[in-house]
Amino acid sequence: MTLVEEVLNAKTGEAIIRRVDLVYAHDGTMPLIIEAFKKAFNQVKANAYIFFDHVFPAPTVKVANLQREIREFARQHGIPIVEGQGICHQLVVEMGLAENARVVVGADSHTPTLGALGVFAVGMGATDAAVALGLGKTWLRVPESVSVVFEGKPSSYVMAADAMLYIISALKEYDMNYKAMEFFNVPFSFDERLTLTNFSVEANAKTALIGDDYSGDGYVKELIVDLSSLGPMVAKPHHPSNGVPVEEVEGTKIDQVFIGSCTNGRFDHIKKVAEILEGERVSVRTIIGPASVNVYRKMVEEGLVNVFLEAGAVIIPPGCGPCLGRHMGVAADNEVILSTTNRNFRGRMGSPNAEIYLASPITAAVSAIYGEITSPEGEL
Amino acid sequence: MTLVEEVLNAKTGEAIIRRVDLVYAHDGTMPLIIEAFKKAFNQVKANAYIFFDHVFPAPTVKVANLQREIREFARQHGIPIVEGQGICHQLVVEMGLAENARVVVGADSHTPTLGALGVFAVGMGATDAAVALGLGKTWLRVPESVSVVFEGKPSSYVMAADAMLYIISALKEYDMNYKAMEFFNVPFSFDERLTLTNFSVEANAKTALIGDDYSGDGYVKELIVDLSSLGPMVAKPHHPSNGVPVEEVEGTKIDQVFIGSCTNGRFDHIKKVAEILEGERVSVRTIIGPASVNVYRKMVEEGLVNVFLEAGAVIIPPGCGPCLGRHMGVAADNEVILSTTNRNFRGRMGSPNAEIYLASPITAAVSAIYGEITSPEGEL
Repeated sequence: MTLVEEVLNAKTGEAIIRRVDLVYAHDGTMPLIIEAFKKAFNQVKANAYIFFDHVFPAPTVKVANLQREIREFARQHGIPIVEGQGICHQLVVEMGLAENARVVVGADSHTPTLGALGVFAVGMGATDAAVALGLGKTWLRVPESVSVVFEGKPSSYVMAADAMLYIISALKEYDMNYKAMEFFNVPFSFDERLTLTNFSVEANAKTALIGDDYSGDGYVKELIVDLSSLGPMVAKPHHPSNGVPVEEVEGTKIDQVFIGSCTNGRFDHIKKVAEILEGERVSVRTIIGPASVNVYRKMVEEGLVNVFLEAGAVIIPPGCGPCLGRHMGVAADNEVILSTTNRNFRGRMGSPNAEIYLASPITAAVSAIYGEITSPEGEL
Repeated sequence: MTLVEEVLNAKTGEAIIRRVDLVYAHDGTMPLIIEAFKKAFNQVKANAYIFFDHVFPAPTVKVANLQREIREFARQHGIPIVEGQGICHQLVVEMGLAENARVVVGADSHTPTLGALGVFAVGMGATDAAVALGLGKTWLRVPESVSVVFEGKPSSYVMAADAMLYIISALKEYDMNYKAMEFFNVPFSFDERLTLTNFSVEANAKTALIGDDYSGDGYVKELIVDLSSLGPMVAKPHHPSNGVPVEEVEGTKIDQVFIGSCTNGRFDHIKKVAEILEGERVSVRTIIGPASVNVYRKMVEEGLVNVFLEAGAVIIPPGCGPCLGRHMGVAADNEVILSTTNRNFRGRMGSPNAEIYLASPITAAVSAIYGEITSPEGEL
């Protein structure tokens, strides 16, 4: 039995209708959900939350107006809005909104992040999210599952992001469409487990879960990953599946480093970065984006804020930051960006002529000091 | 003799050429300066600095491209750029760049802020700033001066901003064009003295200075301000000269509060705000913008960051923030903004249909708790 079958209490391939324990959306997706919702419903039946994380505080009048409309809808329907306190997926975890949940629908592609909590969490488009809001239910076909089984212990400069950049590139030719990714024998911290499930989306996974005991039964594919032989990875432009060992791109000059996002903006990530930047100066524009206000508060408590300020980095408010290229560090033409986010599609962070490389927080931090992509091996 | 005559060592009305000790500009004005400079010069002869404060990190590809061009020009001419470390006027003070200076030219209207250091500091347009860059000199007509003489001690809820909102409204009908404002008998802290000179621009002053002993000689006008009888002031939309006692607008519902800027984003200001917000929750969107990374660092050291985060406010990176309506808190249509900045012109912070009220940090902080314009009297 796969973890998905266990959580959904149904067999692979079955079409089922399930109660949705939580529906959430953000300032980026909510406007279209409102439009779709109004076509079919008057009343919100789901337990719902809205987060302003994508482009907050507003950088344009248009965005500000959209946010005002969302507030109006939320007020009418009694939906709580959390503004500028962090990234939706992170806040759902921290606020305990998915505790004891089985099925969560999020109007954001990286909703499977919550799989690290044992929840069947799927990202849905505006129409499906609106239906979940209006009915409090959703329909699903129980997906097939691919297992990822870790072996060995990662070295000190290898993070969950490196594992995922390796896995995504290893599955490049494999059709993950509508399949779940299930991780076993995971040696990473809680913060890092969320990185695994979050990043699974870039392998085209429908959702992801993390299990304790690996039965091996019922999987359509099994991927064994020996972490002890894995080095730091970098995904080249313009796709997360273009992962290569960092050595292959070492020396590539960079214009900006972004460390943060729902992928790598949690405390464990930021702390590693601070350990590297302590007493150092960055030589390129470096933006630090805590994933939530709690992460930010912990940064203050543990003295990390001053480490970053003294290193010359800019700390942006908790949220998605420049990940989606709409404010707080948009890439200029021909700039090279090194980012700990999950997507390096052409134009994702700004100019379509910019080149985005993806890496772990450790690799990004070391590279920020040198102004070029640098392997952290021997630097820690 | 006026302070201006003393600093410039020349008589009122005289046309003079003076060496410029410092020329500075920011990401907002530098592109036009480069254009003007290239028409007449090959070489920078002035001691120059560039600051990225207005719209940093970049919110659009266009802005990012302009910043890249500025970097290129700066590299060619050996001009240092300070990116994302705070507002130009504040950094010039903190970095000691105007120490022992007599004449400073800034390509920003609020350059007279530096008058608090005893410098003849003027804001100039792109062409004049380019000439100052290329020649290391500028020409001036020595302005007439208006004296502002303080009397009495302000109460604990009255700040320099209140004094200035009063002064600007008192001079509404007076022609301050090309006249300097000279302050005497100033009972405010250093941080607050910079608020006086900064805000003088909104009375249309050419520049401002602060003196120790008031001779009374040579002034075209004298304004006596009894601080002991002054209460908190608010400037109504859409001009800073629309100052009224806060009681007149009490109860006005607000959508956003911004506390920061070159006017009121220094440590003394932020500290007052923290004293008010400690243990409280804001009931409207509240954005805190430290004027520099040093202010931010002090906020961390003194535990103010956590006060703001626990109050539900959003701290943005050091810089101009939403003051000029280009990112990090742009006003939606019909929104009401309460701001500690110096300009509430129609459309300044976003939508032309938004209404901006100006107030002191104390009044803004108290109002943020109640969600409406509130007098701080009796609240401290």
